[in-house]
This record gives sequence, structure tokens and C-alpha cells, in this order.
Amino acid sequence: MSGKRQAQDVRDGPEGTVVARIARALGERRPGGGKSMRIAIGDDAAIWKPRLGHETILTADWFLEGSHFDREKHPADSIGWKCLARAASDIAAMGGEPRCFLLSLALPSSHMGPWLDEFLQGLKRASRRLRCSIAGGDTTRNEKILIGVTVVGEVRKGCALLRSGARPGDAIFVTGRLGEAELGLAELRAEKPSRYSRHPKDSRIRKHMYPEPRLAVGQWLAHRKIATAMMDLSDGLSSDLARLCAASGVGAEIEEWRLPLAQALCRKMESLEDLLEAALRGGDDYELVFTVREQIARRMPRRIAGVNVTRIGTITRRSDILRVRSNGNRGILAAHGWDPFR
Amino acid sequence: MSGKRQAQDVRDGPEGTVVARIARALGERRPGGGKSMRIAIGDDAAIWKPRLGHETILTADWFLEGSHFDREKHPADSIGWKCLARAASDIAAMGGEPRCFLLSLALPSSHMGPWLDEFLQGLKRASRRLRCSIAGGDTTRNEKILIGVTVVGEVRKGCALLRSGARPGDAIFVTGRLGEAELGLAELRAEKPSRYSRHPKDSRIRKHMYPEPRLAVGQWLAHRKIATAMMDLSDGLSSDLARLCAASGVGAEIEEWRLPLAQALCRKMESLEDLLEAALRGGDDYELVFTVREQIARRMPRRIAGVNVTRIGTITRRSDILRVRSNGNRGILAAHGWDPFR
Repeated sequence: MSGKRQAQDVRDGPEGTVVARIARALGERRPGGGKSMRIAIGDDAAIWKPRLGHETILTADWFLEGSHFDREKHPADSIGWKCLARAASDIAAMGGEPRCFLLSLALPSSHMGPWLDEFLQGLKRASRRLRCSIAGGDTTRNEKILIGVTVVGEVRKGCALLRSGARPGDAIFVTGRLGEAELGLAELRAEKPSRYSRHPKDSRIRKHMYPEPRLAVGQWLAHRKIATAMMDLSDGLSSDLARLCAASGVGAEIEEWRLPLAQALCRKMESLEDLLEAALRGGDDYELVFTVREQIARRMPRRIAGVNVTRIGTITRRSDILRVRSNGNRGILAAHGWDPFR
Repeated sequence: MSGKRQAQDVRDGPEGTVVARIARALGERRPGGGKSMRIAIGDDAAIWKPRLGHETILTADWFLEGSHFDREKHPADSIGWKCLARAASDIAAMGGEPRCFLLSLALPSSHMGPWLDEFLQGLKRASRRLRCSIAGGDTTRNEKILIGVTVVGEVRKGCALLRSGARPGDAIFVTGRLGEAELGLAELRAEKPSRYSRHPKDSRIRKHMYPEPRLAVGQWLAHRKIATAMMDLSDGLSSDLARLCAASGVGAEIEEWRLPLAQALCRKMESLEDLLEAALRGGDDYELVFTVREQIARRMPRRIAGVNVTRIGTITRRSDILRVRSNGNRGILAAHGWDPFR
């Protein structure tokens, strides 16, 4: 943590300060950054020792009240988990391992008590699970809760998977099920505040609140040099696949009947069309989409590191993305995922 | 730039998007990160190749409308410059070189036109001056202007200067003049909006709007292993020196008559006391404070890399900081710099 325009020193108050509480909750030298980290919280900056034979990966993510979460709807524990998990998903998307993170946190005075403790609990669990230690950050006061997370990861030299490597004829795969987080958000919004839980039983709400970046799958694909391109699904397949295609200068054909949909809930009378739309447009899944040469695609396992992988289509020479319906009809798939500037 | 919950791709609109405009303004592969950076804007994350024999330094800094700047008072150009310069000052404080940065930017729709262009101009000049290239970041929309900057720097292995190395008897030095930025802010606040300029003639306002991190001095001290402890002055000497002392487990004595004050302005009838208070309490100077063994202090040059360095006191065994007045009176110097949580 830098001392710049932020909380006074640890010795300033009997309660300790926000920085001191973050350091107490997260500052242990543990797996991940542990051995590589020389100075973490308490100096101007953190010092990081890169591993030989690796490249460093850098990514930054906003997580803002009102845009990305709601202080009334989302438990502080899930906000703590998710702010790190979603940033680490960008590391998974390159085939890397997260190692440490910087936390920029701005809080209203009203949220410096129990809310902060619960937030730090969720963040700590994510930090341990993802083996990604805190290296520093910055704290200040603000009316709204503002979170910025920078994750530093590592990838074996020459193994990083980019968005730009897809070629016509490559098979397109995704991990997990698509659309679950979006459906979970809809369910959360429909619930009464009194029913919110830090430990939701509903798997969709759980996926929305506690996403699991697909780090092991990403590394498996990167180390074996199996995928030609990869990215994570944060804004929805229709938007994100368009970005991968743009970076690679290709198009794609998605065979809709192949999409791994959320399971229909009888009590909600969900139609296949609802689930399909959620899979195509829904954001926040943090699954991976990747492309593989056709001859390798035939030999792909159905599960990698315990996660289902599903072929959903093929890269084409076109400049757009087609959706192929089960009756054979084709139409252009417009990018309709989440976009803060729309 | 990650695609996560942010602007649509470059090909989405004729005007280009915020990300595309940032990439156009700043994305060139230039000094600093240039050779080390493989993938910058346009993939999930940036890949960074650390230099052999160096450690990586990581620092994150908030720069928020309302807390750190005012959209009415501060030209966009100076906001662009300062958000990077103040973050890079943490790298200077360790004796390192900035190499690349991640920009997290949230803007109101009204600020995506000329304001953004002017902001990027200031940021670009800082990026070139500090030899620190953009590596990525995240963009979103927000009612207030929110900026988070993460700077990645490097320092020769074993050369990083920490806050914790000061020992009783060490001499305390500072670079430049103290209090100028605070006096400049007061002048800026007193001016009519019509008189704001991107190129203020007043050197105090210039120092407030366009601070210059003391990178060359920091590196000079680190490479020669001359300083025992160092940090940058962002919140004011009284607060920041207290942090250095706390980290080192020591106290300090400041001889007030030695402090390098801002020059008095005749037209403002400033008293020595005003200038002294600004030097002790004023934030935003981004000068360095460092400690040196007594026998080396006697041989210290008066200027390092073109910047004046001034001895201002001595580290003591006490646990507090004393101010010694020119008449010999002594009193405790309380930490009264800027603190967002007060």
C-alpha cells in the first residue's frame, strides 16, 4: 500500500486503519506471491521477483457499485470474492497463473466496519483459492464503493494464448455452461433482500456471486499448445467471440444446438429459447472460449481439469458471426452482450 | 485493455470507442515498456518481459474527481499528466524506473469527447517524459471521473530503497522545495475559471498541476547505495516522515530553518510562517525524503541530477518527530498532512 493520500499509519489509531485491517486480513505471506514477494503492504510499492523462464501478465479490472454490483443486493463477501476472481479470469484467458494483486479500494465511512470485514473475508478466500497474494494498492474514502483490482500473473515463456491466433477451419470450444450467471442475477434481483445469503443454494446465483476462473483449463491448454486462440467470457458469447474473431481477422459459425445451456428450472417454466438467449448474450460467466485445429479437435477430451469442454462451432473466413439453428436456418449473431458505453 | 465489461471492439463504431482512442493516443510501442511489452491493448491482458538482474516494482494509485481533483478547476491535460506522474513517484521512491502502466478509466458520457482527447494528450506527454508505456487497463462509464493507475517499474536487484532502513544518527534530506504544490492549489482555487490555463505561468500552480517525480535522484541514490531509507512526499512532510519513522522504528528532529521553502510572493504578503506551514503540512509535492549515514551526509552533493537536495534534520531514537525552531524551542510535530479518512 502506498502512503500516497491515503490512510494514516498503523500507529495512528487504536482501531487500526483501513490499510492495517487489509494487511491483517490478507497480508500473510502465503502461496502464490509468497516466495516471490519481498515487500508487500507498508512501503511505497511492492517488489516482485519474476520467475525464470516466465513472462509476466498484467491486467486491471474495475468493479464499481451501480455498474457491476449493487450494495443492497450483493453480500460484501461475494463482492470481495468476485472482484479478484473476475480479474484473475483474464490471467486464465492467457493460460497463466495469477501470483499477486493490487487492491484499490474507495469506501463510504458507513462501510468501514462490518461491511469491510465481510468484504475482506470473501477476498481472502479468493486470494487463497486462486493462490494470488495481496501486494499492495491504495485506499481512500468515497460516497460510492469503488474497487479496482490489478492482477499480476505469470505464464511460461512462449505459451501465452492470445485472441489473435484463430484460423478458418478451427473448431470453437467453450468450458462449463453458458448463461448461468445471467440467470442467477435475474433470480437474485427477484428475491427479497431478507432472503439474500452469503451461501446461496441456487447454483446459478452462486455462479453469479462466486465465479470460478478457469485457471487449470487455461494452463492445460497453454502448456500443451493445443489452443490457437483463447479469451474469457465476461460480457457474453456474442460480444466476446466477436472480439476474438476481430483480433484474428476471421468469422465464426455457432451451431446453437451444441451450446451448453443452463439446466431449465421446472418451477420457472423456462423455455429453451430463454436459456439459449442467456447463453448467447448473458455476461459474467467467466468461462473460456478457445479455438483448436480441426485435426486436434477430434481428439479433445470432454473434460479438462474436471471442467466440461464443448465444441460449439467453427471459425470461418467471413467477417461476421452466424448462428445456425437446429432447423438449418442461419442468421447473423449481433454482439449484444454487456457494454457500459451503450 | 481487457474486454471485460467494457467498450465494444474497435470495429463497432465509426467514431471508434474509448479503448480505440486510448490505443491511438498512447498505444505506440515506445521507450520504456517498448521492447519488453509483447501484447499491449487489445487482448485480455498484457505480457511483460522482466529484465534480467532486476526486480519488478508494483504500485497502484487512485485519482478521483472530488477527492484528488476537481473537474471544474483542473484542466483535463493536467489530470492526464498527474495521474501517471504521481503513481510513478512511488517508483521513484524505491529507486526504480517506471516501465509500463495500466489505466483504469471511468467517465461520464459528457467527457468522452474533447475532454478525453485533452486528458490523453497530458497522459501521453507524461508517458513519454517518464518513459512509461501503456500496457492495458479497463474502461467504463460512470457519473464521476474515476482514474486508477497501476505502474510497473524495475529496480536493479538488491538496490530498492525501503522506508524501513533509517537508523538513529542518520541525516534526513529532501529534494526540491516543500509546500509549493499546496500553495499552488490555493492560488488555483482563488482564480476565476476563465483564467485557468493548461500552461500556467505561476511555478507553484505548475507544480500542483504537473508534478515531476524525482526518478533520476531516486535512481542515483539507489544505485550508489547511499540512502538508508527513502519515500516520496505526497501527503506532506509531517505525515510522510512519520510513516518512514514508523517503518524504521525511529524518531526524527527537524530543524525548521533548514527547510527548503517556497519563495515568498511579495504581492501576497506571505509570512515565513505561512511558507513553513505549507512545507510541513502541504501535500502533492512528490519530492523525495531520504536518510543517509552521518559520515556520508557530510560529502553529499548539493544537487543530484539537477535537483537541489537539502539536509533538514536527523533521525533519533525517540518515537516521535520534534520540530526545532530557530530560537532553539522544541515541540512535537503532529502528522497533519492530507488524510482521506479524517
